[in-house]
Amino acid sequence: MKVLVWDDDSYLNNPAAIDMHPNGIRNTIANFLKCDDIEVTTAVLSDEDCGFTEEVLRETDVLIIWSHGGNEKIPDPIVERVWTHILGGMGLIALHSSHFNKIFRKLMGTSCTLKWRMNVKERLWTIAPNHPIAQGVDETFALEAEEMYGEPFGIPNPDEVLFLGWFAGGEVFRSGCTFTRENGKIFYFQPGHEDNAAYYNENIQKIIKNAVKWACPLRKNIVLDCPLQEPLEQ
Amino acid sequence: MKVLVWDDDSYLNNPAAIDMHPNGIRNTIANFLKCDDIEVTTAVLSDEDCGFTEEVLRETDVLIIWSHGGNEKIPDPIVERVWTHILGGMGLIALHSSHFNKIFRKLMGTSCTLKWRMNVKERLWTIAPNHPIAQGVDETFALEAEEMYGEPFGIPNPDEVLFLGWFAGGEVFRSGCTFTRENGKIFYFQPGHEDNAAYYNENIQKIIKNAVKWACPLRKNIVLDCPLQEPLEQ
Amino acid sequence: MKVLVWDDDSYLNNPAAIDMHPNGIRNTIANFLKCDDIEVTTAVLSDEDCGFTEEVLRETDVLIIWSHGGNEKIPDPIVERVWTHILGGMGLIALHSSHFNKIFRKLMGTSCTLKWRMNVKERLWTIAPNHPIAQGVDETFALEAEEMYGEPFGIPNPDEVLFLGWFAGGEVFRSGCTFTRENGKIFYFQPGHEDNAAYYNENIQKIIKNAVKWACPLRKNIVLDCPLQEPLEQ
Amino acid sequence: MKVLVWDDDSYLNNPAAIDMHPNGIRNTIANFLKCDDIEVTTAVLSDEDCGFTEEVLRETDVLIIWSHGGNEKIPDPIVERVWTHILGGMGLIALHSSHFNKIFRKLMGTSCTLKWRMNVKERLWTIAPNHPIAQGVDETFALEAEEMYGEPFGIPNPDEVLFLGWFAGGEVFRSGCTFTRENGKIFYFQPGHEDNAAYYNENIQKIIKNAVKWACPLRKNIVLDCPLQEPLEQ
Repeated sequence: MKVLVWDDDSYLNNPAAIDMHPNGIRNTIANFLKCDDIEVTTAVLSDEDCGFTEEVLRETDVLIIWSHGGNEKIPDPIVERVWTHILGGMGLIALHSSHFNKIFRKLMGTSCTLKWRMNVKERLWTIAPNHPIAQGVDETFALEAEEMYGEPFGIPNPDEVLFLGWFAGGEVFRSGCTFTRENGKIFYFQPGHEDNAAYYNENIQKIIKNAVKWACPLRKNIVLDCPLQEPLEQ
Repeated sequence: MKVLVWDDDSYLNNPAAIDMHPNGIRNTIANFLKCDDIEVTTAVLSDEDCGFTEEVLRETDVLIIWSHGGNEKIPDPIVERVWTHILGGMGLIALHSSHFNKIFRKLMGTSCTLKWRMNVKERLWTIAPNHPIAQGVDETFALEAEEMYGEPFGIPNPDEVLFLGWFAGGEVFRSGCTFTRENGKIFYFQPGHEDNAAYYNENIQKIIKNAVKWACPLRKNIVLDCPLQEPLEQ
Repeated sequence: MKVLVWDDDSYLNNPAAIDMHPNGIRNTIANFLKCDDIEVTTAVLSDEDCGFTEEVLRETDVLIIWSHGGNEKIPDPIVERVWTHILGGMGLIALHSSHFNKIFRKLMGTSCTLKWRMNVKERLWTIAPNHPIAQGVDETFALEAEEMYGEPFGIPNPDEVLFLGWFAGGEVFRSGCTFTRENGKIFYFQPGHEDNAAYYNENIQKIIKNAVKWACPLRKNIVLDCPLQEPLEQ
Repeated sequence: MKVLVWDDDSYLNNPAAIDMHPNGIRNTIANFLKCDDIEVTTAVLSDEDCGFTEEVLRETDVLIIWSHGGNEKIPDPIVERVWTHILGGMGLIALHSSHFNKIFRKLMGTSCTLKWRMNVKERLWTIAPNHPIAQGVDETFALEAEEMYGEPFGIPNPDEVLFLGWFAGGEVFRSGCTFTRENGKIFYFQPGHEDNAAYYNENIQKIIKNAVKWACPLRKNIVLDCPLQEPLEQ
């Protein structure tokens, strides 16, 4: 399975983020994903075609995106290309502030707005313990400091809500949600502010690894069109 | 619209509950529901047929149930009768510990299990502000002391989750959920432990009143069967 | 309630369509919608801002769209404006070939592809007889000639499928589906090829009229944003 | 993976059914399921505990049921036992007339009613081609003679509709639906009247084999209860 981990390098002016992720958020994630079953490459907004050439996307089984300042910076034709590949089978894991990434918003068709506040203790709960993404994950675990995301979350009704987030200021959030868009499987996962340590947490790593396996397509590069259909019955 | 508010009188040995509800939980609720549009009657487990005679059910548009110790005490044929009326159009509002009432469990087809702890501060959030049940309800409001219910909640995937509950011990819960079972609309609502004050809270009252209007059937007493269907096309 | 019926005039070179709709499809529909409760206006692609000025959209409760050749012709900024109003509360009824209208596709986030063939007998079935949109509609009724639409239909999982279409060539389709996008309620309805008579059929008229009432917003012009949320609990 | 194929032998007085299934429907199905990955056993209503002893259920990964005349004949305590195992992880494939089996109805919580007529040509369509159950299945295929099942089908909203059925008399049906009930995955599949040849059709066999693999639990024999939860946060 080929996984591409992409971020927008928008945290490079944040020393605490650079300390947390010396080789970028994309490599922090790639490091824990690599194993015999999963071949991981990384890309960044400043790459050719933002990292999303047709050749790369054809080969990619699952795309993981993390973005913040760069959410609006992928040109529309490239957003369209990535979107087409997701509809055609490529899985998508959208992390944290990429709820506002043009790719994720195009798939949702909604505003994807939410409430927020920095540096809040979070406690995650697995509410669908039987889901593949929840296997080997603790029923509940805490993150000492995260960026609180609060409801209402401007998404369409998810297929399933897998994780709920409790925040110390009294807030709650649908922190892990699945969606299907034709042949593409999508998992949105809230934790992961750039200078917090979520991606070093064992449970978080397990969730993202499980999500990659869950989102891996059975069929890829499916072309969607509107054919004339001849009658099969009289 | 005719609403029947039913409880099981299982709190009569709890002085704090009797103080909170001098005429029973059913009358606490009936008192805030009564208005020009809504004609409210009450019933209790010890009534004839547990309060669920065929004549009463035929006339009832929406049934509200609160039960705890009496959850298992309605005989199966009467559970079946109430269930048939719900499938036939009667709306159901299932409150708090009635998640374990045989009527609610029969409609869900699952265990309806959950975690619990008494006397916990709760904060409710409206996550579907556009839903009819959420109209005129604050985006968020607190209940100083409630019985915490925690995930996972053993229900099938609801049609919609309208309210999430945050609890001071770190717990979260899908506190307000809608379900459809054929012609019957169902709203499960978590707050309402017998010696807590939830049913005197303005937002809680608004939610239950809105839920009654939402659950009111367009058609009632629909008979469901398996007819032989003659061909309409050659 | 204010309803705006819009089409793209793309059938003006089709004499059979002009015979069927002497004042345009939009007026065929407006004529059966007008009543004491519903104030109906019409607009067309060639109007100022394609008919979708900010002032018009602010006032509109439900927008009905029919388009075919003009599906791709609304400029993106105007699509964005209409989309924003739908997320903010305006209801949308998307008819027939407008499955490919940029507005509908933006809300779906998918390709909206399907199979097709002209002049096929269709039989519609009401599979959710309790839904408001199905009230007063026959359980099943036929359209002597329609444009067959066939599965798979490239949409996300609808909230509900209300009507299924049977076609004489052996095809089936999810002919009536509901979706929610934040504050906006959406109904997609398949019948209505430009030179067929669907919009003169009593059942079809009832469905569209019910859909307009169902989609009418409780709240309108809601602004969606990402506010900083101060803690409410310690 | 251990699969148990169960039927109720209710067709033994139907010579055409005996011709079609010389060793019973359960063995017709077992014969095409057996392979290196899948160990198949069979059971029948007349067995000890109707074939559903605690020991057998503990070992079973996926249960396939076919029943007609015996739909109401499993005693309630045994229905409860099977149901508990499904909630605890065992997968369920419910075939054809078992829509009325007490086990399936208990999981649905609805009447499961439908329309019917014998000996109708059916054409199935795969509407979710990306689903694991649809892999290697033709987009559409016909069954020369089946028992028509028609809408409305008295089920709760399925998680997903995978297959739609077209019938020569003008009827349509949600012929393949998935449901989740806590740890149990359920697939309902309409074809399979006792004297028709559906279970000898390659596509039907592929669907049932895929469904067994899809329904195979990740975790089994999970006990569901209501524990007191101590606070994890102050």
